[in-house]
Amino acid sequence: MIASDVRLGEGVLIHQPDLVNLYGCRIGSGTRVGPFVEIQKDVEVGANCKISSHSFLCSGVIIEDFVFIGHGVMFINDVYPAAVNADGSIQSADDWTCLPTRVRRNASIGSNATILGGISIGEHALIGAGAVVTHDVPHHAIVAGVPARIVGDARAARASREGTVQTLEIS
Amino acid sequence: MIASDVRLGEGVLIHQPDLVNLYGCRIGSGTRVGPFVEIQKDVEVGANCKISSHSFLCSGVIIEDFVFIGHGVMFINDVYPAAVNADGSIQSADDWTCLPTRVRRNASIGSNATILGGISIGEHALIGAGAVVTHDVPHHAIVAGVPARIVGDARAARASREGTVQTLEIS
Amino acid sequence: MIASDVRLGEGVLIHQPDLVNLYGCRIGSGTRVGPFVEIQKDVEVGANCKISSHSFLCSGVIIEDFVFIGHGVMFINDVYPAAVNADGSIQSADDWTCLPTRVRRNASIGSNATILGGISIGEHALIGAGAVVTHDVPHHAIVAGVPARIVGDARAARASREGTVQTLEIS
Repeated sequence: MIASDVRLGEGVLIHQPDLVNLYGCRIGSGTRVGPFVEIQKDVEVGANCKISSHSFLCSGVIIEDFVFIGHGVMFINDVYPAAVNADGSIQSADDWTCLPTRVRRNASIGSNATILGGISIGEHALIGAGAVVTHDVPHHAIVAGVPARIVGDARAARASREGTVQTLEIS
Repeated sequence: MIASDVRLGEGVLIHQPDLVNLYGCRIGSGTRVGPFVEIQKDVEVGANCKISSHSFLCSGVIIEDFVFIGHGVMFINDVYPAAVNADGSIQSADDWTCLPTRVRRNASIGSNATILGGISIGEHALIGAGAVVTHDVPHHAIVAGVPARIVGDARAARASREGTVQTLEIS
Repeated sequence: MIASDVRLGEGVLIHQPDLVNLYGCRIGSGTRVGPFVEIQKDVEVGANCKISSHSFLCSGVIIEDFVFIGHGVMFINDVYPAAVNADGSIQSADDWTCLPTRVRRNASIGSNATILGGISIGEHALIGAGAVVTHDVPHHAIVAGVPARIVGDARAARASREGTVQTLEIS
């Protein structure tokens, strides 16, 4: 289910087009998208990213180039989700403010992580699996936990791959 | 995949009927259901709810009116999940007790939250994103974390929307 | 979407064949697979298991017999996920080491749990819902939390089903 208004760059690879739900979004060249992914309208995904299975990218999300989104990652774009307004009427697009979220180039988000609305994730940052991100993440930071805290520096971790796992473990 | 035994109220909106798995359940009028949602038999969803993408509502779950279920929310209905019985035989419906869970009107459950079986979530309660709910949640409570703890009151948060986010962040 | 190279044992039950993504894997006899499940190439699932909806089993995962995988469970097989190599080139299968993970017989993994790569989960172990497993789990251990810690013994819990819930709650 790739709506006709989706703009796909050159060489975009969507492994199972019948098992995704993409509409009104733009996907940069060379990016790969797994099955069971929903990408809503106005989302922009950069070039050479990987959007893994079971992830949800809501309106308001901007993904820069070279970003890795793990499996089951959920983005959020409202402060206070609700089915109805205070007066009981059904909420429509006019009834809430869409909080923008930006994931900067080369960041990696671990599986089952949840990213609250209005967040900025820095370049080369690493979000641990299962983390709930409630604050901005600096460039190169490694964060983990619920809520996510800074537990290391991705530059050091890149220098020693064993180090990455250890850092995440002590979170 | 909407089984023929699903009872849909007036104006129910299922965005991608081919990308859900609904059977034996009842969905109240005006409720919206996203893609990649499974709703099992005997589940009752009230009117004017929103069931977001990637969520799983198991048998035993009752959702009252005006409830918001975020993305990737998983309900549970057994104490001790297992593939087989102690004697090695495959578990069937007769081999376990289905724990009932009720989500009361106007409650909101954040994305990637997990709700254990046998839980009652109070009216207007707010479950933080990524929370694992192991106890009953009182009316109007805000809970967050793993396991979920009470971190605020939804009435105060509604009065000051900025307050909601802050409360969740300090959890 | 069950690829032609999937080897299914006798009596395997895949509830919604059009709503899964299985390729290059082997599923043992009597095992049941829910909707919105992806199982990648080289995965081996034993006999009489239950793989619940919305779960992701990546290459490198071996599931022994009689294992229960809850809903929304994500396995991981790399230390440091990334979209691109340090030189900016797209990562291919040759650019990372696939960490093997083994789930031993009769283990049960709760919903929304995340299992890091290179992990061994012991026989009859119980992984709490929403746990992020970063270390090996001994036989019969109950683990819960982010990161997962040992909170009980499954043998004691089996003897007193009420006990299981309580143990998980105090985690």
